[in-house]
Amino acid sequence: MEVGFLGLGIMGKAMAVNLLRNGFSVTVWNRTLSKCQELVAQGASVGETPAAVVNKCKYTIAMLSDPSAALSVVFDKDGVLEQICTGKGYVDMSTVDADTSSKISKAITSKGGYFLEAPVSGSKKPAEDGQLVILAAGEKALYEDMVPAFNVLGKKSFFLGEVGNGAKMKLVVNMIMGSMMNALSEGLCLADKSGLSQQTLLDVLELGAIANPMFKLKGPAMIQNSYPPAFPLKHQQKDMRLALALGDENAVSMPIAAASNEAFKKARSLGLGDLDFSAVHEVVKAAKDSDSA
Amino acid sequence: MEVGFLGLGIMGKAMAVNLLRNGFSVTVWNRTLSKCQELVAQGASVGETPAAVVNKCKYTIAMLSDPSAALSVVFDKDGVLEQICTGKGYVDMSTVDADTSSKISKAITSKGGYFLEAPVSGSKKPAEDGQLVILAAGEKALYEDMVPAFNVLGKKSFFLGEVGNGAKMKLVVNMIMGSMMNALSEGLCLADKSGLSQQTLLDVLELGAIANPMFKLKGPAMIQNSYPPAFPLKHQQKDMRLALALGDENAVSMPIAAASNEAFKKARSLGLGDLDFSAVHEVVKAAKDSDSA
Amino acid sequence: MEVGFLGLGIMGKAMAVNLLRNGFSVTVWNRTLSKCQELVAQGASVGETPAAVVNKCKYTIAMLSDPSAALSVVFDKDGVLEQICTGKGYVDMSTVDADTSSKISKAITSKGGYFLEAPVSGSKKPAEDGQLVILAAGEKALYEDMVPAFNVLGKKSFFLGEVGNGAKMKLVVNMIMGSMMNALSEGLCLADKSGLSQQTLLDVLELGAIANPMFKLKGPAMIQNSYPPAFPLKHQQKDMRLALALGDENAVSMPIAAASNEAFKKARSLGLGDLDFSAVHEVVKAAKDSDSA
Amino acid sequence: MEVGFLGLGIMGKAMAVNLLRNGFSVTVWNRTLSKCQELVAQGASVGETPAAVVNKCKYTIAMLSDPSAALSVVFDKDGVLEQICTGKGYVDMSTVDADTSSKISKAITSKGGYFLEAPVSGSKKPAEDGQLVILAAGEKALYEDMVPAFNVLGKKSFFLGEVGNGAKMKLVVNMIMGSMMNALSEGLCLADKSGLSQQTLLDVLELGAIANPMFKLKGPAMIQNSYPPAFPLKHQQKDMRLALALGDENAVSMPIAAASNEAFKKARSLGLGDLDFSAVHEVVKAAKDSDSA
Repeated sequence: MEVGFLGLGIMGKAMAVNLLRNGFSVTVWNRTLSKCQELVAQGASVGETPAAVVNKCKYTIAMLSDPSAALSVVFDKDGVLEQICTGKGYVDMSTVDADTSSKISKAITSKGGYFLEAPVSGSKKPAEDGQLVILAAGEKALYEDMVPAFNVLGKKSFFLGEVGNGAKMKLVVNMIMGSMMNALSEGLCLADKSGLSQQTLLDVLELGAIANPMFKLKGPAMIQNSYPPAFPLKHQQKDMRLALALGDENAVSMPIAAASNEAFKKARSLGLGDLDFSAVHEVVKAAKDSDSA
Repeated sequence: MEVGFLGLGIMGKAMAVNLLRNGFSVTVWNRTLSKCQELVAQGASVGETPAAVVNKCKYTIAMLSDPSAALSVVFDKDGVLEQICTGKGYVDMSTVDADTSSKISKAITSKGGYFLEAPVSGSKKPAEDGQLVILAAGEKALYEDMVPAFNVLGKKSFFLGEVGNGAKMKLVVNMIMGSMMNALSEGLCLADKSGLSQQTLLDVLELGAIANPMFKLKGPAMIQNSYPPAFPLKHQQKDMRLALALGDENAVSMPIAAASNEAFKKARSLGLGDLDFSAVHEVVKAAKDSDSA
Repeated sequence: MEVGFLGLGIMGKAMAVNLLRNGFSVTVWNRTLSKCQELVAQGASVGETPAAVVNKCKYTIAMLSDPSAALSVVFDKDGVLEQICTGKGYVDMSTVDADTSSKISKAITSKGGYFLEAPVSGSKKPAEDGQLVILAAGEKALYEDMVPAFNVLGKKSFFLGEVGNGAKMKLVVNMIMGSMMNALSEGLCLADKSGLSQQTLLDVLELGAIANPMFKLKGPAMIQNSYPPAFPLKHQQKDMRLALALGDENAVSMPIAAASNEAFKKARSLGLGDLDFSAVHEVVKAAKDSDSA
Repeated sequence: MEVGFLGLGIMGKAMAVNLLRNGFSVTVWNRTLSKCQELVAQGASVGETPAAVVNKCKYTIAMLSDPSAALSVVFDKDGVLEQICTGKGYVDMSTVDADTSSKISKAITSKGGYFLEAPVSGSKKPAEDGQLVILAAGEKALYEDMVPAFNVLGKKSFFLGEVGNGAKMKLVVNMIMGSMMNALSEGLCLADKSGLSQQTLLDVLELGAIANPMFKLKGPAMIQNSYPPAFPLKHQQKDMRLALALGDENAVSMPIAAASNEAFKKARSLGLGDLDFSAVHEVVKAAKDSDSA
């Protein structure tokens, strides 16, 4: 199966590599074209522009860093829109808001193309391991065509209905995740200040009803004040903001998410936006050594 | 090994049964003595009073519903204190605050007895399956004597140092759990009001970095507005209150736990205190069918 | 002095009446033209369209209900933009977000017109009494021309600099007000449930450091569960949302405003959006008569 | 009229001086007796111990810094309890929790004495100006006897019913005040980061529906990062904690107070507990100069 692939950032590169390793014929494009070389070494072809990729491939996947990049690749000169047409499919796997997704969908379908948004749950490691969770929405027929690729990229894919639902599901998941990260951070701080071992807390959590991979992965690093960016804090905060905006639209009151969002904003204000989102721990634990109680 | 066992509520009964099944000789006592019959049928002896149990057994375990019950069993007439003495050990596995634990500890040790607080993580099901996590603190030698019993009751036990640390660790864990429950509830509500399937959200969560047994166990019931009490909401709220008080003592700011606590308080005010703590979902989703946005 | 006046809602009508009473020659327009009759009875002329008003008057004031109405009056057919030109001034006193204000400003100035945003602080009563506080920003020269009208409409006007600052200042004020309303409501509920008289609480507050007109005006009605709409809750919630968005843009963490916003959202979800914003009290006090504590 | 006066801290001294200036015969006592000299210079007598003061005077007023001082003065050797008896009245104007007040009340009345708790609203300046608000509860007859003194010390006194209600009313008022302080601080920060003048915000607030003496008094100092302690932050945080505990008891959900309390706790953790409670502003504004948004 032949696919185009636009965007070779941390996630995109890992995904394109997986497709190549599993026998897909992949034509890649990246804004900084030099980044394509590593993929070429593994068997990829290169498209000079998004339009060139779409022209060549029946199906094109995009994995871009943010809504503006996602829009730019479609609407700019030499963009996807110039070549998309009846019979071709465009699958945007970037994490974008529902509005962005809707704009792209309308443009693609107005040219006769098929559109699928398919944001993923999971960051670098699951991308490399083909263990993403794929949240697809849009054209059902295109979803079915893409199943072989999704089976390579992820451990499971969902078809969620109309365009926008993929983005929304992603936001809901990340919102819960952001609140959980704050909950963990508060727990670690409380343990520490109360004379308990933070590592023992992690050990206890690991054995109980709320054990989860994120606590196991991030907890030990947080104790060490180490926040290597797997999912940058500023992106997590953006997702919480968008989730809260979605809640606002639908009159859903979410005080825990709102409080968590404010903690992430505080972290941003402290210059931590480019670290991993677990760096919100710096906000939670911020304190002098002794208090004036 | 012979042990006394005080308190045959949901948890206590399951634990005493496990001890009997694993060859322990168990003498039970319960405020409502009739509750002892079921245990007698499985081989237990009955003590007429806590004092009688302690008189008979070298080691006595208590599993009581709250701090006042824990204090009463020790200090009241015919209580533990009347018979505890050098060479005897008292293990309180109830979930109580550090103050209560400390009072009991002082009383027991002033009579020459050994004391261990050993609250557990896990509710009815893990208690039945001998899969509790045991958070012990106090007299190290007594901890070591109790290891055979702990191995039957739990999948893992920790020795956490001085008296109070078991209670504190429990509070930290339950605080994180309470915040996570609120996070899940908000996510379910947001999904629902945004046109997403709540069941699909649970499926997606189950596959990702924040998958955890609690979401898997409670989520489907919450969608059905079903909250059979495994861990009553009023106890969860009490634990959050105590965790926040511990944070106050140590000047730890915990806005997510504080917001979660207010949601649990709201649930209590709505008369949901005796349902499972997942019933906080009723507070989060409370809304008319259509809003005035 | 001759002025046009667009929008005769609760606020606009009171303001136009004040201008008429103080000797201004006023040409009014309202989407539902029949609403103009009451003003005509007090000496106003009527313009058939916004464009007709602007054509006739050197200065036109608008007081519209929301951003979409504010945009529509300017950009739609027969809108302000068709007649605005060099030498004419347009003063938008509606409460709108900075983006809306900026769009209108650009359109007006690109036609050579002068623009001033001048949202007000104060609702129905201050509007009727000419006691508004006017937060003007944009063209300084136009501000100076408008001072006679502002002196009639308000007790004080401020010139705040570039377009957008009036809207921003309004949001900041309303955000503080929204948090204070929640604080009052929580206090009333706590007093009530703790066996204190709510009216005595209001009396005590009135004598202390935090005495303020809003507590005095709204407090007694809140005790009576009465929320006649002076400032509709849905508009207050919108302002809090926009203030939080402004904070997000500038990485300002505002947990109290965020928590208050969630309470207003909950009120919206309960169908209280058209009542006064003090109706958030219904959310705060919501409880069964007895709790399960 | 002759009164005893125990406690010459900032508040107590100002109150005792007012009594002296208004013709009361005052016998003072302070833990550090040297502090009495300034009062003696203004006509006061000195009692060597609390017991000595009560022995000499029919009515004794206490104004102490915290619950433990309030208890100590009554129960310690040479304390109030040694001399209180039928016909004598004891008026505790300290701010203490309901439990403390209740303990003192029981002890006094068990000796035949009359007891009144009478905490005040207002800090140093109102104390000096005799403009306190007095929240009395307990023995109605004693309240009536004390009215002449209360008229000198305060601008208004309330009789609130049973012992404990004075303390509770105080907590409710201070809770609202603490939330308002946070609301103001968030508003100042948002104004500042959004390019608005903080002073203009204060000017605008001063003219509107939420104008209040506290904003006027504290606002300008907060802009200057100046927090001279009128009401120490650690005491404000303690009052919020106690108000939240009262809410917990009565199942009143108060998310804004809870969030405000966490901000005060954060301030404590940063070593700001001895500054004025407006120093919570340091927590709210804490940010690097530029963020990573």
